[in-house]
Amino acid sequence: MTANSPFVSDVPAAEALAAWADARAAADCPARVNVVHVPVAAAVGRVTAEPVWARRSSPAFDSAGMDGIAVRAADTVGAAETTPVLLAPSDFEVVDTGDPLPLGYDAVVMREQVHRTEHGEAELRAAVPPYQHVRSIGEDISATELLLPEGHRLRPVDVAACAAAGVTELGVRRAPIVVIVPTGDEIRPIGTEPAPGEILDTNSLMLASQAREVGCDARVTDIVPDDPEAITAALRAAAVEADLVLLIAGSSAGRDDYTARVIAGAGSVAVHGVAVRPGHPVVLGTVTGEPATPVLGVPGYPVSAALTFDIFAAPLLAELEGAAPRERPFTTARLARKLPSAIGMDDWVRVRLGRVQDQVVATPLPRGAGVLTSLVRADGLLVVPAGLEGHHAGAEVRVELLRGLGEIGRTIVAIGSHDLLLDLVASELRAADPLITLASSNVGSLGGLVALRDGLCHLAGSHLLEPSTGEYTLPYVDRLLGADAEVAVVRLVHRDQGLIVAPGNPLGLTGVEDLTRPGLRYVNRQRGAGTRALLDHELNRRGIDATAVSGYSREEHTHLAVAAAVAADRADVGMGILAAARAFGLDFVPVAREPYDLVLRTSELPGELLAPLWALLEREDFRATVEALGGYSCAETGRRIR
Amino acid sequence: MTANSPFVSDVPAAEALAAWADARAAADCPARVNVVHVPVAAAVGRVTAEPVWARRSSPAFDSAGMDGIAVRAADTVGAAETTPVLLAPSDFEVVDTGDPLPLGYDAVVMREQVHRTEHGEAELRAAVPPYQHVRSIGEDISATELLLPEGHRLRPVDVAACAAAGVTELGVRRAPIVVIVPTGDEIRPIGTEPAPGEILDTNSLMLASQAREVGCDARVTDIVPDDPEAITAALRAAAVEADLVLLIAGSSAGRDDYTARVIAGAGSVAVHGVAVRPGHPVVLGTVTGEPATPVLGVPGYPVSAALTFDIFAAPLLAELEGAAPRERPFTTARLARKLPSAIGMDDWVRVRLGRVQDQVVATPLPRGAGVLTSLVRADGLLVVPAGLEGHHAGAEVRVELLRGLGEIGRTIVAIGSHDLLLDLVASELRAADPLITLASSNVGSLGGLVALRDGLCHLAGSHLLEPSTGEYTLPYVDRLLGADAEVAVVRLVHRDQGLIVAPGNPLGLTGVEDLTRPGLRYVNRQRGAGTRALLDHELNRRGIDATAVSGYSREEHTHLAVAAAVAADRADVGMGILAAARAFGLDFVPVAREPYDLVLRTSELPGELLAPLWALLEREDFRATVEALGGYSCAETGRRIR
Repeated sequence: MTANSPFVSDVPAAEALAAWADARAAADCPARVNVVHVPVAAAVGRVTAEPVWARRSSPAFDSAGMDGIAVRAADTVGAAETTPVLLAPSDFEVVDTGDPLPLGYDAVVMREQVHRTEHGEAELRAAVPPYQHVRSIGEDISATELLLPEGHRLRPVDVAACAAAGVTELGVRRAPIVVIVPTGDEIRPIGTEPAPGEILDTNSLMLASQAREVGCDARVTDIVPDDPEAITAALRAAAVEADLVLLIAGSSAGRDDYTARVIAGAGSVAVHGVAVRPGHPVVLGTVTGEPATPVLGVPGYPVSAALTFDIFAAPLLAELEGAAPRERPFTTARLARKLPSAIGMDDWVRVRLGRVQDQVVATPLPRGAGVLTSLVRADGLLVVPAGLEGHHAGAEVRVELLRGLGEIGRTIVAIGSHDLLLDLVASELRAADPLITLASSNVGSLGGLVALRDGLCHLAGSHLLEPSTGEYTLPYVDRLLGADAEVAVVRLVHRDQGLIVAPGNPLGLTGVEDLTRPGLRYVNRQRGAGTRALLDHELNRRGIDATAVSGYSREEHTHLAVAAAVAADRADVGMGILAAARAFGLDFVPVAREPYDLVLRTSELPGELLAPLWALLEREDFRATVEALGGYSCAETGRRIR
Repeated sequence: MTANSPFVSDVPAAEALAAWADARAAADCPARVNVVHVPVAAAVGRVTAEPVWARRSSPAFDSAGMDGIAVRAADTVGAAETTPVLLAPSDFEVVDTGDPLPLGYDAVVMREQVHRTEHGEAELRAAVPPYQHVRSIGEDISATELLLPEGHRLRPVDVAACAAAGVTELGVRRAPIVVIVPTGDEIRPIGTEPAPGEILDTNSLMLASQAREVGCDARVTDIVPDDPEAITAALRAAAVEADLVLLIAGSSAGRDDYTARVIAGAGSVAVHGVAVRPGHPVVLGTVTGEPATPVLGVPGYPVSAALTFDIFAAPLLAELEGAAPRERPFTTARLARKLPSAIGMDDWVRVRLGRVQDQVVATPLPRGAGVLTSLVRADGLLVVPAGLEGHHAGAEVRVELLRGLGEIGRTIVAIGSHDLLLDLVASELRAADPLITLASSNVGSLGGLVALRDGLCHLAGSHLLEPSTGEYTLPYVDRLLGADAEVAVVRLVHRDQGLIVAPGNPLGLTGVEDLTRPGLRYVNRQRGAGTRALLDHELNRRGIDATAVSGYSREEHTHLAVAAAVAADRADVGMGILAAARAFGLDFVPVAREPYDLVLRTSELPGELLAPLWALLEREDFRATVEALGGYSCAETGRRIR
């Protein structure tokens, strides 16, 4: 990549996996973890290390398959409605389902088909073929048959079948041991309060949990400072007990060089740098020892760390157990927007999914390696292969599912302007019904209406002001979707917009007219955002030219991002909602009260999907909670204005 | 159903679930399990009991997004290839990725784009926009935003994001407690040697494992004898500690009446008998107490027990946690054979799946409620709804997946005659590569050739003798698939067929000519079975009429079933292979040595799927193992005869 990081390359993922496998074989890393023999009850989740052959048959005896009487079939020949056969009490025996078939009998007649005479005889009105309603010995399992092959991960039914076949102990692979070594001077344990510049060690927790999720025994060492000798010592110690070491590097190219050098010193580096994003600076190697141990240098950015585990660690851990790796199901989906991607890298894109007008729609989430919430919110993963420059909007893509399609079918997809109130709505809906999800993506009001037009969402959150008329939302709906479009508009809330300023409002800003002050650093919202339209309107009303506002061209994409810029003293002021100011402990100078509307297809209005939302908006306690937040009014909440 | 079991009805599953929910509400069963507060590290797998809001932003400070130098964007204005800008050492600062952005700087230039002069100045050849390569405070998480809704099952990425957002403890639902009460005089604990008529308690192990698999705490009580008072006492005691009691009944209608009466006595019965097969005699009720506790009367047949858990227990347990129940993915598949089903019952059919000629093909497995191996071998579940009489062969059906489609794509589907050698092959293939499965279904030689013709399998195992010529397999291939069909035949093995007789051959049978002995009980194979054709040929050669063999019309479907009939003294003799006789410790009188062939499409011959099979057949150690089994010869193993 550069002269400063001589090792880093862009090895395609499949080649990297193969190179690592070769390196492990060359270093004599064990191909499998050891076999242990455990009682069947303790074997669930483990992988068979040998084929399991039935030791005895099940059922172990011929038995009655029904409640009724055991008979000799030969005795029933000729029985019919008009010529019933009477069996003397000594010629049949009452049996319950599961009872062994009494000696000398060869068939069972269901209780319901037997008429008992007052002398205790059994009257049969139909002949019975031999072995009717008899469960034969070995019907389920025959002694010596193959019950399970080697390399089978044991499920509850498997161990029950083993026990039924007389197998009480199973030879299985023990759980692989994963040792996680966090490194970095700036890394602090979870639970401490990090100082500025320090970072909590969330990766160790995540990786250990991922390892446990795939059935491994995971251990985390103390955080090792940025000292090659200390890291080498920690790596060697970890390798002694581990089947796989995860050495978490810092997140930079400089840092993973460090990791790569330490691994090279303690063993060998097979691959440094893969053509996968996020996850590029991964290191694959081995640590010398008796036996040698594979080591994975995990990048420090959390999304990189999580994906690196999936792509490189999980297949190796399954292989160590001799089992197939876990598979995620796939679906096809329509891409909600254009997805550019750099040639030469597999691009792992996190997407939200929803079913809109009977199609699964995938909306890409933020792609930064540091944005862990993109994984938290993802319903699926989409890989843009190294050879592609991306996908067009509307393209059909293959998505690896992180949530079930049933749940996705009960997801309300909201695209458009974001308001914190949507989060509250999402949470209240879920509390009332665990199967409902409201997923909102923030692309601005205008983007939301476009998404609705294109069939990519159920709801578009919008607060677009028509400066010439002062009217909200409706003119834009007419323009973008057509005046006769079958589209409804429901008012969600009125909210205060204003200037977000540092605590105590040190510059003493009183309103939009102060934004032209020389030296003032304003931070704006992106084009198409309703808040930007509101600023334009307010400037216009006052005859102020936008170029007079220093920072007008500087764009952030959310209320919270604007507040964050002010909180970090990267800006003095930006327009946004009160809730965003509060989130960062900032002050707020009200400018205007505006409606925030939900735009949707009329056909969705009476549907089952949105019914819980309409019910929620009518709830008095919900409205009270919203108004208590401050900056909101529910006077028109739930009113349909189109 | 009958006068003897007055409660049993056929309530459709959805109605039964609703009736049980009503009954639980009426009895004041808790809607949710309690909330506990646990450290984030202990919360994976649990369900949030409240929304999780971010306590602080992540990153908590503006930081460098790249290794390089921090600069003031304003200082770089005008920089270009021809007009580089030189920054004095006091006008920039070296930063690594993740470092806090030093005070006064507002952008980062990548190391690779900085040329350092010998005086330590930084030469820039491009102007830099403000905030280039700066990770903003809150880029991942903004303080106060909704991180997770209530009712969310926590995954590794979720807890990591919580920790990053300053959340160290989470309010989650504790794991629901499931108490399993096995009952029955004939039930014995696993690990004991059951006497005739006794049954091992494999259901408790299975149900406890199923409960743990969905995240519950599962406990099993001692086995309770068939005594209503004892069962009532055990049920009440279990209800005190449990969130759900699973009371395992015997498997008969009589038995579940018992269960229903006990439950009615300890609380109330909401439903007894559902329109689901297997699983019909389920009991849904509640046990009185403070609070009341739901109870599920589980049928004793193992497949019924397993499915009953999936259909009735799993949704309730998810509801108690306030979460969505686990979903299995679906696929569509072509049905390999006709699937009749009784009107009025949801029929849960276990199927094997394989990808043949680019279509997923589903082959139904044995449907008995007692055949647990049908679940062990299943790749999917297919529900024939109550309103349907079944499906035609070739119909497109929706299948709930129990294995990933990737694994299914590496499954060799063998349909036809079964030989124990196929089990050995399956096991050896798996041992060599954990991703390969060989799945064999036994429908007889003729059925296999038909399945191959219809595109339902990769391999048809066949040993069909043409009586007129003494030739094996090839005449049938010509007849069924056409003389010019692109079909290959590979010899798997030669094997001995003979008479399977009781240990010591008490009747002194010497060959086929003895089968006409008066009073002898023969057990035959089904029509289309190669072994039956062999018998016909041997009788023919000797001029014996089939009607002279008593039991000729009595059919079993496998070698092992024939051996089982002899072992259980339900028959004196049947034709089969030596391995089947050995499985039951029986004696064997050889009759003929015959080839067992694999028939397949020529196009599959060089494919990746079957390559490991051909390699295995060439292995000397494999051939030695086969011949050591006895009754087999590998002289022609692997030879292509067409």
